Amino acid sequence: MAGEEIRNTQVIFRDYVSGFPKESDMYISTSATIKLKLPEGSTGSLVLKNLYLACDPYLRIRMQRIENPIVFTSFTPGSALNGYGVGKVVESGHPDFKQGDLVWGTTGFEEYSLITETAQLFKIHHTDVPLSYYTGILGMPGMTAYAGFYEVCSPKKGEYVFVSAAFSAVGQLVGQFAKLMGCYVVGSAGSKEKVSHNHPQYACIIFKCFQLQEEQDWDAALRRYFPEGIDIYFDNVGGKMLDAVLLNMRFHGRVSVCGMISQYNRDPPEGITNMINVIFKRIRVEGFATFDYYHLYPNFLEFVLPLVREGKIAYVEDIAQGLESAPAALVGVYSGRNVGKQVVAVAPES
Amino acid sequence: MAGEEIRNTQVIFRDYVSGFPKESDMYISTSATIKLKLPEGSTGSLVLKNLYLACDPYLRIRMQRIENPIVFTSFTPGSALNGYGVGKVVESGHPDFKQGDLVWGTTGFEEYSLITETAQLFKIHHTDVPLSYYTGILGMPGMTAYAGFYEVCSPKKGEYVFVSAAFSAVGQLVGQFAKLMGCYVVGSAGSKEKVSHNHPQYACIIFKCFQLQEEQDWDAALRRYFPEGIDIYFDNVGGKMLDAVLLNMRFHGRVSVCGMISQYNRDPPEGITNMINVIFKRIRVEGFATFDYYHLYPNFLEFVLPLVREGKIAYVEDIAQGLESAPAALVGVYSGRNVGKQVVAVAPES
Repeated sequence: MAGEEIRNTQVIFRDYVSGFPKESDMYISTSATIKLKLPEGSTGSLVLKNLYLACDPYLRIRMQRIENPIVFTSFTPGSALNGYGVGKVVESGHPDFKQGDLVWGTTGFEEYSLITETAQLFKIHHTDVPLSYYTGILGMPGMTAYAGFYEVCSPKKGEYVFVSAAFSAVGQLVGQFAKLMGCYVVGSAGSKEKVSHNHPQYACIIFKCFQLQEEQDWDAALRRYFPEGIDIYFDNVGGKMLDAVLLNMRFHGRVSVCGMISQYNRDPPEGITNMINVIFKRIRVEGFATFDYYHLYPNFLEFVLPLVREGKIAYVEDIAQGLESAPAALVGVYSGRNVGKQVVAVAPES
Repeated sequence: MAGEEIRNTQVIFRDYVSGFPKESDMYISTSATIKLKLPEGSTGSLVLKNLYLACDPYLRIRMQRIENPIVFTSFTPGSALNGYGVGKVVESGHPDFKQGDLVWGTTGFEEYSLITETAQLFKIHHTDVPLSYYTGILGMPGMTAYAGFYEVCSPKKGEYVFVSAAFSAVGQLVGQFAKLMGCYVVGSAGSKEKVSHNHPQYACIIFKCFQLQEEQDWDAALRRYFPEGIDIYFDNVGGKMLDAVLLNMRFHGRVSVCGMISQYNRDPPEGITNMINVIFKRIRVEGFATFDYYHLYPNFLEFVLPLVREGKIAYVEDIAQGLESAPAALVGVYSGRNVGKQVVAVAPES
């Protein structure tokens, strides 16, 4: 079988998007084929069978036409999307990977992917935890939460921490990391359904959380939850929430800017009008990129795996079945339909 | 004479201001008197004869009604303004100060001030430089430039530095500090007259500078002056300039937020729409307060005095004569009428 071409179902990016993405901005194609055997001399390449794909918020940025790419490049209309995923090596021309290895990293939104660039591919050594976790808590979002909280925020026990998008892949981890550290933690989430996950059955997700639509005035809500002000804001949403937070920061507060999901579909973005508080309260607002911290990945795994195994940290996933569900699952992330990390299961693990 | 009351001319704050301050928001009063002799038992207090007063931009903030003071308190309608100045001790009940001592620090906008709080008063030990410099390059603005540039920006030789309000008290120093360090420096200023001070006669003020009104599009101007982008932005103005700068920052750029003079008279302020670049380019935006760094004042003097004495640093002042000129001088700062640090000379030095 390995020598012949087989069908390779793909999620194709139709054309550049403005505003909110729709399911019809993607389509499922069954017309592509792939050879599972690498051509002679394909040193450094791999063929991957994709098992799980991550519906990461940043993918929206890649759906627009990016004239001067600085961090992200646009998807190519007519080609499959790509992003983070978990896969199994079907064939390897790379000395570090062998057939049957499990990996996570950048792959295609398709059944099988030919990977020619392995720099951002990590081998999975621990399989006593759900494999899908490597699209989340044990993968890029986990590293994002770890680097963005511990490295960027310099947190101290007892500090007042606010996390927006508190049940997102990253947000739920930041909240729990902060809680484990002995911080006072409050989160915000977009729906009641999300906040309902804030329940003892979810072990450690027991920080306070308020629901955005239930609050007329976010500044007032923050004042109620943080009468003493906020030391650390882990920003996943940007826009008006960031503006309200700036009013409620404490002296020498830190804002770790991880994402701005509320702004990705807006042109122009909402204006931030409370920047003067950055001076008054000597606030540090800092953006970061997870890939600047990947050298810490082994430290991170050593830290987080025991917490996962001992049930000291909970992790909520929203798993959609089959590549066909990918367009709806991805679009749902921007309307906040998912509860927990949105994953697409592409194929059975074995 | 010291025992009797003498007339004490004052600059009185009339009432809370919204929008741009006008001269009529202040008035000169000659009705107050002061005893130059301290009452028995006035331990820790001083009587100061004011020589120079600083028209610092932050005074505008204190002219509005501040409901929840976090850093600044409002001026009291009907009372004299206060701010930074240079004075001579007329009488002292404080063991660290004696009659005839020269000091700089917080004092009143009046001929004589009774100082009951000396924590923010610094003794002047070096008088071979102009005394008025202690309202500027050798005082709070000098410390602001020093701390805001060296401590907050972590500058490196060869980096690309942009300074707004480049001929303000702080801006002209940051530009020169950066230049002395071997950075590429560009400033912006509000008028041709200011930019004309960018002349070899001003020794070291030889960084490039563009005039705001001559540029239709600040983003385009910045792209022209910084084809490689900006590593460090020393922000004195906030608002639209900050927004344009965010588009032009380099990876791992730093924004030291010192002031937002373009926003002090606006309600609501201009919205900052390009915050997403903070993530894309991993920018650190940091506010600071000079008084957090006053422990470095001796280091600063040791650094800057030789530069001043050897003419390696230039400093432009705009000195208005007499307390009566204070309202116009202060108001002029917000329309950009001054060229260099705006000072009011209250009394002859001897």
